[in-house]
This record gives sequence, structure tokens and C-alpha cells, in this order.
Amino acid sequence: MRKLTGNLLYGQSGGPTSVINASAYGVIESAKKSNDIDKIYIMKHGIQGALQERFFNAKEQSKTNIELLKHTPGSAFGSIRYKLADYKDDDSDYERLLAVFKKYNIRFFLYNGGNDSMDTCAKIANFMETKDYDIRVIGIPKTIDNDLPFTDHTPGYGSAAKYIANTIAEIAYDTLAYPVGKVTIVEIMGRHAGWLTAASALANINGFGPDLIYLPEKPFSITKFKKEVKQIYNENKKCLVAVSEGIVNELGEFIFSSSRATDEFGHSQLGGVAAKLAELVTRELKIATRSVELSSSQRAAAHFQSLTDVNEAIKVGEKAVELALNNQNNLMVIIKREQEDPYTVSYDGYNLSACANEEKKMPDNMINKQGNGVTSVFMKYALPLIKGENKPKFNKGIQKFAKMK
Amino acid sequence: MRKLTGNLLYGQSGGPTSVINASAYGVIESAKKSNDIDKIYIMKHGIQGALQERFFNAKEQSKTNIELLKHTPGSAFGSIRYKLADYKDDDSDYERLLAVFKKYNIRFFLYNGGNDSMDTCAKIANFMETKDYDIRVIGIPKTIDNDLPFTDHTPGYGSAAKYIANTIAEIAYDTLAYPVGKVTIVEIMGRHAGWLTAASALANINGFGPDLIYLPEKPFSITKFKKEVKQIYNENKKCLVAVSEGIVNELGEFIFSSSRATDEFGHSQLGGVAAKLAELVTRELKIATRSVELSSSQRAAAHFQSLTDVNEAIKVGEKAVELALNNQNNLMVIIKREQEDPYTVSYDGYNLSACANEEKKMPDNMINKQGNGVTSVFMKYALPLIKGENKPKFNKGIQKFAKMK
Repeated sequence: MRKLTGNLLYGQSGGPTSVINASAYGVIESAKKSNDIDKIYIMKHGIQGALQERFFNAKEQSKTNIELLKHTPGSAFGSIRYKLADYKDDDSDYERLLAVFKKYNIRFFLYNGGNDSMDTCAKIANFMETKDYDIRVIGIPKTIDNDLPFTDHTPGYGSAAKYIANTIAEIAYDTLAYPVGKVTIVEIMGRHAGWLTAASALANINGFGPDLIYLPEKPFSITKFKKEVKQIYNENKKCLVAVSEGIVNELGEFIFSSSRATDEFGHSQLGGVAAKLAELVTRELKIATRSVELSSSQRAAAHFQSLTDVNEAIKVGEKAVELALNNQNNLMVIIKREQEDPYTVSYDGYNLSACANEEKKMPDNMINKQGNGVTSVFMKYALPLIKGENKPKFNKGIQKFAKMK
Repeated sequence: MRKLTGNLLYGQSGGPTSVINASAYGVIESAKKSNDIDKIYIMKHGIQGALQERFFNAKEQSKTNIELLKHTPGSAFGSIRYKLADYKDDDSDYERLLAVFKKYNIRFFLYNGGNDSMDTCAKIANFMETKDYDIRVIGIPKTIDNDLPFTDHTPGYGSAAKYIANTIAEIAYDTLAYPVGKVTIVEIMGRHAGWLTAASALANINGFGPDLIYLPEKPFSITKFKKEVKQIYNENKKCLVAVSEGIVNELGEFIFSSSRATDEFGHSQLGGVAAKLAELVTRELKIATRSVELSSSQRAAAHFQSLTDVNEAIKVGEKAVELALNNQNNLMVIIKREQEDPYTVSYDGYNLSACANEEKKMPDNMINKQGNGVTSVFMKYALPLIKGENKPKFNKGIQKFAKMK
């Protein structure tokens, strides 16, 4: 393939993480340094922005705002959940993109997201090839769920894990206040993979963590749950449970529907998993309970960014630019763990379509035999990812976030 | 009154705050410096520890653990919710306390808590006076709710406010990700006073905060709520609402029962206020919603301590020792705001019984006319309280907390 010069188009897609904007920072800063890249366009709301020609111009943003990207949660440039059709069925979006790419001389297309975004990315790369439009398409991984394959971990996971573990440590300490405690059940994100819920175990490092951890990888039995909670409560007069929102029964069905829909009479349906398990404990074990849902802070708690995660998110953005400039195409950037103690990583690219079509779950050797906790293999894997703190930028006690224009 | 020498007894009571242990630090460190105080006993689980003679010995704790008190949430020495009877009706607990005080030569009794704890404190002071047992009883305020009277604010409020405002800022930024957003409803603690919910407004300082704020001080109208949400959503395609768990109707009744009890058939009752308002919006306005309960992190988020709050919590503990040593009795330590810009405070004592029997609500001049936000008077009042960060002590990415023995 010939070496390209032209303009770069970057976008964010899917649910935010607290470090996706750090990857944007990496892309922007390294693209600025290249003589082969002229303009750096950023899609407003991901692929929708590309289709509608709504772009930010990275070079027009203030230095302050670019620096703040490293501390800003959410999607600073807007995100979208939009799955492109297969172009063999309907190529209208693709033809539109091709026209936009030509109009703006887009030769480098970098898309930052999870599984679905990598799927979008791969489809665009393949379509452009069929049209002989010369472009380098690189996917930049992000997801708090840590479920992308072929990469040791995903940017976003370390910070979410750090937030979860520290919040659990605080809640664990809080539950010790009274002589007779409660059964406290904390619900953690992750519909299909237990990585985030498992991160609660990291709190145990300093002595205050969950007693029981239930993951979607192992079938959840209500009978076993009640027995395990009862035993710990009888011993300690308190019990702290971390549970994934995605726990399933032996048939792989969600234990409870997690939606807060209303029935035909307008009555509220059951709430989240933690609330329902708490009700069960109160009703059947006659023990006082408290349920906590960590909610959107898991992806938005910029103030608890792992410094390791932020730095890797930046590097992954830089690597995407490097790969694109080096004539690589149709790849997702991956992180390879090179060494433990000291933990070191390297960066590479991996076939995009392969990355798009697999969800990485926790392997068996990271989950304990009883199915209610993690092993030392998980602890060793996850601890380096939460290392270091990225001190927030405060103004009057409140964090400052980037404002793009 | 004669100047006393003897032993000091300190205890924690009621719900924790993220800085109550900083007050313990202030008590311990200043008591250590006094020649009039010999032993420093600390009740295990507050007044229950005193009745059962279960004490920590402060001088036997390691320097590391004493230092960590400034970073430790919850109640490092255990807390209790126990309201003493009126001693005219039943003096058995009081006689027991008197015996314990005599046995351990307790001459300084410092109790750290909210309204109920100040009530306990006042009753003990009065009883000991009727028995001519010479003791100095001083209350040390703490509550995230900020509802103690006669003090400008209470230790614990500033840190909870800082956690709430920053979390709201992160959620506000997160809600901007998609082109069409949701109505996000965040439920904040405070059964009777709106101070904590009002703190969400501080997030607006840097441009990302709630659109609407509903406080228990103003009657909540569902019709008005729907109208206000609809108007903002129609304009912005998103709406962020901060709502107190304690909102009431015109009759002063809670809008929804907030308990998660089960009915006679074992069905779950309605959940929290945010979840119920979200259901209402989804059902009646046909807008997608998300509900978030900030939950126990509000009192436990040690990682988000306001440095101002930590330092004041220490000072309030020191002041309690100073008052007790200076022959003051039956007082609660109060904080007086001396000056704005730069913000300065002084410390004093105020009649304990008076402090015990009043809940301080938000005054009218801090709430806007529409009853859906705060005024600049509130902003000016609250901003100094969240200033500065008390950097947590981390080990392997997880906060370290004190372990008392």
C-alpha cells in the first residue's frame, strides 16, 4: 500500500469511560506532530457526525481544553449508539461516508469504542476497500467492561475498577460502624462479563472488602446465595456482597429482569438485582439489608482515574495514529502485557473483525471454586491496572472538564 | 467550678461522616498534650461501650493508625444508635454510667454525634450534676445533614457536599454523550433538610450541574415537577434533576414511602424517590429516564474529603478538649463564620440541650422563588466548605484506613 497523506477523522462511540477522552488526547497530540496529517477532524456524536458532516476541528481547541481531556469523563465530543447495516444489504450510509471522506480528504479514520464500534470500523474498512478508496482505518479500544478480546485489558477498565474497589472499601468500613450490622448488597455493572464486579475484591488488599462476589460467568443459585449469606452473617453480624447486574441461572437466563419497566397497570416492576436480593434476604432470612447500585459513576468517576489507565489510554490513541501513518489498516490497537513486577506493556494492532465479534469473559482460573469470589490469578492481573492516581483539576473544589467548541 | 484532672472518655454516635474520625484525631492529639488528662479512653460503639466497659486505649494505638484517622470513613471506634431514657423515668443506664465513670476516674466526657447524641450528652451532664459527680461534658458535632443549630455548619457536611457536587458534575457531563439524552434523576440524602441536595448546585460553578433541584423545605408538586422537567427536556433533549429523599407534599407527608419493605404477599414495595419519579416521567411524559441513588457513599466517600472540612473537624475535636480543660460543661462545640473572602472561622461552645432539640433547615433566602433551585446566598455559604482536597493514603491503588485495636 502506498503511504498516505491527508486529513484525519476521529470519533467516539458507545458508552463513555472515564478515560476515553485521554485516548482522544493521544490521537490529537500525536496527529499534530505528523507532517502527513493536515487537518484533524473530530466527529460530533461519532458516526452520526460523520454522516451529517458535523465536525470539531482539533487544532481550533484551546490548549487548556485539550489538556483537560485527560481529566474529563463522558464523551467530550459526543457519542452515539448506531450500528451500521451490512453494506451488502444497504450501502446508503457507506456511500454517504465515502462522499464525506472524499469531500474532506479523510485518509485516516480512527474510531474509539467497544465491540459494536469495532464492528462499525471493520465494515467501513472493508467497504472502502471494495471502492478502492485509499484510507487507513484503525479501531481504538475502550470499555469499562474489559470484554474486548486479543488485548490484555481495555482502557477504561482500570479506572472503573479503581473506583469500584475504593468505593467498596469505603462501604465495607462503613458497615463496621454498628455492633449489629446488615447484609449490604452492592450491584456492579457488567451484563455478560464479571470483570467489574470482580474488581470489588481488590478492596481486600488493605483489609476491607466484600465477603461474597457473584459473577455472570458462574450460574447463580438463590439457595446457595442464601446459605452463604446466612453463614457469614451468623459469624460476623454483617455481610457485604458484590453482585453483577448480569447474574444468570443454570439456563443462562437473568436471575431478575433488571429493567424498571412498568406493567400494564402502571405499577412499578421490580428494581435492580441488588434491591431484589436484598428483599429476598429481608423476607426469607429476616436480616436487615441495604442495597446499593453503583450506577453511572462506574464509567463517569473521572476523579478516581487510575494513572496507569490514563497513560495507557493516551498511548493507545498515539499507537492508532502511528499504525495509520505506517500504512496499517483494518486493525484494533491492543495492549500486550510484557512483564509483571514491574508491570510493563507494549502496543500492537489486531484484526478488527476478529475483535468485534467476541466478548471476553473471565477465565475459570480467575474465579474461585465455590463461585463466590476471585483467585490470586485475578488479583495479580488486576492490581497493576489500578495503580497510581491522576489528580483531578479543581476550581473552587469542583472538577474542571473540557468544553469543546 | 474547680479545675479537674483525671481521665478522658470519648465516643462516636449516630451515622458516620467521612470526617468524624478527624475529630477523634483532634481529641486524641490535644488530650495527649495536656498534663491534666492521664488516660484517653475511647468507647467501643459509643455509649454502649461505656455501659459495657468496652474501651480502646488511645495511647496504645500506633502512630500510623492515629494519622490514618484523618483519612478513614465510618466510625473507626464503632458507633451506636441508642437514645437514653429520661433519667427521671429510668435512671438505670445513668447509674451504671456513674459507676463506670467513678471506676475509671472519668472527668472529661466528649461525645461526637448529631442531634440525638447531643441529647444523650445533655442528659448525662444534667444527671451527673444531680449526683454531684464532677465531670466536664462536651458535645462534638458531626453530621453530613448539616442540621445542627447554632453552628454555622457541621463537620461532615463539607465533604459530603464535595462528593455530591463532584459526582453530579460527572453525571451531568456523562448525560451529554448522546444526541438525545434522558431525564436523569439523582436521589440525595436528607430526610428533613435540603442542605445535601442543595450541594448538587455547586457543580454548576464549572458549567456542568443539575437543571432542577427539589428540597424538603418546599412542598413538592408532581404536576409542577412534570411541567418543569418537560420544559427543560423539550429545550435541551436532556434534563438532570437532583431530588432529596425527603421531599414532602403540601401536607408535609413524604411524597413516596422510601422504605423497600415488602407487602403481605412478599411483593416488593416501591423503591426510592428517584426511581419512582423516573417511572412517573417514563409513564406519563414518555421520556427515557435513568435514576441514581447516591447512597452510603455520601457519608463514606473518604477519598473526596474537603480539606477545609477535615481541618475543621480536627479543630472541633481540639476545641472540645480545650473547653473541658477550661472548666466548661454541658456545651456543644460550634463553628462561627468570622469572615468571607478569605473565609475564616472561630470555635466556641453553646448550650447542649438547645443544640439537641432543633433541626436546622435551609432558610428561605437560600432557595429560589420557583422552589426548584438555590440562590447565590446558598452558593456563597457552601462554596468555602468544599475547598481543598485531603489526598487519600493509597496502598496499591486502594485507600488505607485506620485499624484500631
